[in-house]
Amino acid sequence: MSQHSSSDDARTARPLRYAKEWHSPDSFTLVNGSQLPGLTVSYETWGTLNEAGTNAVLVCHALSGDSHAARHQPDDDPGWWDLLIGPGRPIDTERYFVVCSNVLGGCRGTTGPNFVDPATHRPYGADFPVVTVEDMVDVQRRLIDHLEIGCLAAVVGGSLGGLQALSWATRYPDRIAAAAVIAASARLSSQGIAFDVVGRNAIRHDPEFADGQYYGGAGPEAGLAIARMLAHITYLSDESMRTKFDPTRLQPREIESGFESLFSVGSYLAYQGDRFVERFDANSYITLSSAMDLFDLGESEEEIRASLAPASCRWLFVSFSSDWLYPPLASRRLVDALVAQSKRVSSCEIESAAGHDSFLLEEPMVGGGRMVAALLAGPGDRTAPLRVPDESQVGEPTSIFFAHRLDYEMILRLLPERTSVLDLGCGNGELLAILRDRGHEKLLGVEWDEEEVVESIARGLPVLHADLGQGIAAIPDGSFEVAVLSQTLQSIVDVAGVLDEIVRVADRGIVSFPNFAHAPMREMFAREGRLPKGEGLYAYEWHDTPNRRFPSILDFQELCAKRGIRILDAIYVDSATGREVTADPNLEADIAVVAIQR
Amino acid sequence: MSQHSSSDDARTARPLRYAKEWHSPDSFTLVNGSQLPGLTVSYETWGTLNEAGTNAVLVCHALSGDSHAARHQPDDDPGWWDLLIGPGRPIDTERYFVVCSNVLGGCRGTTGPNFVDPATHRPYGADFPVVTVEDMVDVQRRLIDHLEIGCLAAVVGGSLGGLQALSWATRYPDRIAAAAVIAASARLSSQGIAFDVVGRNAIRHDPEFADGQYYGGAGPEAGLAIARMLAHITYLSDESMRTKFDPTRLQPREIESGFESLFSVGSYLAYQGDRFVERFDANSYITLSSAMDLFDLGESEEEIRASLAPASCRWLFVSFSSDWLYPPLASRRLVDALVAQSKRVSSCEIESAAGHDSFLLEEPMVGGGRMVAALLAGPGDRTAPLRVPDESQVGEPTSIFFAHRLDYEMILRLLPERTSVLDLGCGNGELLAILRDRGHEKLLGVEWDEEEVVESIARGLPVLHADLGQGIAAIPDGSFEVAVLSQTLQSIVDVAGVLDEIVRVADRGIVSFPNFAHAPMREMFAREGRLPKGEGLYAYEWHDTPNRRFPSILDFQELCAKRGIRILDAIYVDSATGREVTADPNLEADIAVVAIQR
Repeated sequence: MSQHSSSDDARTARPLRYAKEWHSPDSFTLVNGSQLPGLTVSYETWGTLNEAGTNAVLVCHALSGDSHAARHQPDDDPGWWDLLIGPGRPIDTERYFVVCSNVLGGCRGTTGPNFVDPATHRPYGADFPVVTVEDMVDVQRRLIDHLEIGCLAAVVGGSLGGLQALSWATRYPDRIAAAAVIAASARLSSQGIAFDVVGRNAIRHDPEFADGQYYGGAGPEAGLAIARMLAHITYLSDESMRTKFDPTRLQPREIESGFESLFSVGSYLAYQGDRFVERFDANSYITLSSAMDLFDLGESEEEIRASLAPASCRWLFVSFSSDWLYPPLASRRLVDALVAQSKRVSSCEIESAAGHDSFLLEEPMVGGGRMVAALLAGPGDRTAPLRVPDESQVGEPTSIFFAHRLDYEMILRLLPERTSVLDLGCGNGELLAILRDRGHEKLLGVEWDEEEVVESIARGLPVLHADLGQGIAAIPDGSFEVAVLSQTLQSIVDVAGVLDEIVRVADRGIVSFPNFAHAPMREMFAREGRLPKGEGLYAYEWHDTPNRRFPSILDFQELCAKRGIRILDAIYVDSATGREVTADPNLEADIAVVAIQR
Repeated sequence: MSQHSSSDDARTARPLRYAKEWHSPDSFTLVNGSQLPGLTVSYETWGTLNEAGTNAVLVCHALSGDSHAARHQPDDDPGWWDLLIGPGRPIDTERYFVVCSNVLGGCRGTTGPNFVDPATHRPYGADFPVVTVEDMVDVQRRLIDHLEIGCLAAVVGGSLGGLQALSWATRYPDRIAAAAVIAASARLSSQGIAFDVVGRNAIRHDPEFADGQYYGGAGPEAGLAIARMLAHITYLSDESMRTKFDPTRLQPREIESGFESLFSVGSYLAYQGDRFVERFDANSYITLSSAMDLFDLGESEEEIRASLAPASCRWLFVSFSSDWLYPPLASRRLVDALVAQSKRVSSCEIESAAGHDSFLLEEPMVGGGRMVAALLAGPGDRTAPLRVPDESQVGEPTSIFFAHRLDYEMILRLLPERTSVLDLGCGNGELLAILRDRGHEKLLGVEWDEEEVVESIARGLPVLHADLGQGIAAIPDGSFEVAVLSQTLQSIVDVAGVLDEIVRVADRGIVSFPNFAHAPMREMFAREGRLPKGEGLYAYEWHDTPNRRFPSILDFQELCAKRGIRILDAIYVDSATGREVTADPNLEADIAVVAIQR
């Protein structure tokens, strides 16, 4: 049976105090057909598995991570994801049984290149099979079997860990209820692969690499350090490096290193490189970075859809604005592929200057943690407080809250019970929450404001972080009974395009908008020759209004007629009195709620 | 005297057929105080120096370039900038005497690390002094002296060549009439330096580097190739790599290489790395990349301004949208620093997916070449054709051309002769060209549309490629007599901010805009309850108008009053008849031209 190479001491850091080892004597066949005669898996657990075995969360680590995701005791070494895992944390160890295992091909206790090959009695080294993310997941599934977990409540991971979550959802759809895919995408970009290639070349061309059989020798320390330095640049962002190093550009930290330390950024990288070789094995680095490069759910939309088709779990995707390794745009392609198949998915792009590493950092992960917690809790959970205005705020007819509340009432009148609803520009999810309480089951929101998206998702509502054009495009024809566009028309650039999309994706649309042609507006313009202005939704100056469009009821009707969109029903209201208007609404009403259909 | 190391054959590519050598026996003191006992400069020239010695253009090469910038004969090897240099090309060798020399520290004929140090009788190697861009320029100045050129008509360069142009302008302001700075900035980002550091570490940690004394041995081929692969990634863009490699991701080119070629992008980089070591010296690579990293005109605005203060030449800055090594934003900081000092500067950000390497490529350099040609020709040149509409087009009162022509006539009436004029939203420079013909000397345009910017600059007009907010911010208080904003107000988001800026940078502003409150508009809105629409500037639908703002004359007046801006004078016109309106212009006129002042 495989075991640790005894010659590996120099490259194994402090042993993991709480790690358990599971040895499987059964041979393991990799996706490419190669075989390992047995497996050792190093893993840690937190919390207690409930009797039904339904509260297990698998946390997957990134390239340089290991099983030590969080502290076990207050005096324990901090884990790499302490901020997410622990008592009362988003992945609450008082509620969930949390498992994290070192990946296949790693160097922190699980079978990898530093293990002795029983066939040759020397470490596998470069002869260790090419490992894919799928193989890592297959090994984890064996561990989950061993732990007698039927269906994982969730698989959660960032970077390489996110790729594992993706793979879990598609390979073992009946063993996973939810997946949180953080800072990951369907495939790494060619640019990303290129950096990895250069790093691997640096390792393999270090003469101490000795074709991978360096155990017992010095090992390719310079090559591995160089690979790490390079990778480290890609984990940060241009902006974060600027902030960190520009003010002290020519004042390197005082470190002892064989690497160039002329520049402040150079001394930092030298330090990172030097530290990394103390705790990581070069063959593992090659194995794991190759696995990341080989991970591929497809290039085209169709390929990605097909890859994700088997998945049936709830999904959460989190990406970070400055992550250029697994950028938001790439994450969005996965979201689109799931949306196109009407899978239950939420997504959020978090504004962060910290690049790919954001998923490991406290500040960008505040919202991330809240959303992960909501994903684990499931759609029935309503623990997040509602930010609904109280009656005193709503009372004023000139307030935005009043307009919204009035708006929702009218929309609900036009919205048949229990229908599936897409809410475009859903804000903090207020209307969706009302609909959920009213018994509507299939709901989806689309919202552009990050804070509102986090609020909505933290409430357990499925929401896509997207602008309207791009957010709707992936939704299949007729996949909702109703699409709502509440007081958002005036902020849309491509009005006709969005209306067309509404009546494409839903059987009917309900569109509410301010009517800029109501009497006081017309009078002010005609009499005073100034661009009209009013109260509530109309309280903007001509020179700084956030509105892009100024619809009138008649204009809206004409546009619908031109695009072949029928008007099914409408409610027109004078918001000053709250009364419904029936005669000449284009003159008398200031709010219109119109049901439309192709 | 220094000469080529005889042991350097393997690392010197095919000799440069048309290169001349100039040997200077005088010792040369570098900026950091170190000395070279003499200099050899390898250079090439094209065309003929005129008698006055005023038609010389110095072209500066990038890191891996050399003196062979262009063909000398049809059967000659193509140069690295053939597309810009040659008979009838933008840097026209029938008109200009073009000089290009290998830089100090290079490996293509000019004194560098592969030269024998007369003190030790072996190549300098790693003991070659640390070279800065300033030193390169000092060597070039000696060559220019030797060639008996008094004042260079221009210094032109991209990347490291652009840094040399910057340095020329500040070090020898009376020896340079114009500078074209392409794909360059005041300093490399910390991210950019980080990549270079990793590359240099790879070279120095190659055991064959032998502390830089590898001449005669194998040399650090793997290290240099790895450095080149890495740098090459930074010369491309994420997008261009995607296009090039994603469709064939796992189909590497069939090449023979010791480097990883599992991925298509890997085989490409391996090829680039292998070819580079055949023609480049590792010590030169370290020397030149360090010079790029050390180049620093300052971090803060104040520092950059101070660095550029001595310069007195005409400037052209060209950057490329996808260049992440010397990005447009960094180029703009230089432009702003010059604008802040009222230097004559034009700038253009060219849309290109090809990354930093765009400056070497035909397609992105079509516009670049036209602008360089205009820079060389000087402000008096009017060779570029005007795209002025002919009378048949202008004739229709409903046409945009008619509105513009009418607009210009009124603006000219309010515009005192010979005043200095800033034209905000200058389009293709039509009004600026009229003003130049009318004898106005100090002119500057700001325009957001790339094609229009190229047109304007190619006409010899100084134009900044910027949006109005950011384009004006750097202009000092009161630096123009008049600032014109012609038919642009309606497209501005921050109207108040731009008006404030206009009266800050100029003694007076002249603002022309469509009056959305003129009679037919009011009538249509009041009578029909539809958002008004008309002809010419008013011919847009409510749901897709590109206009952001809908000013009326009264609204404009009120806003000015609120901001403490005085209205000095105004002309109001009914464009349908072309007649000036004096009574109730807010009702009767559809075009307003207003002179304002703080």
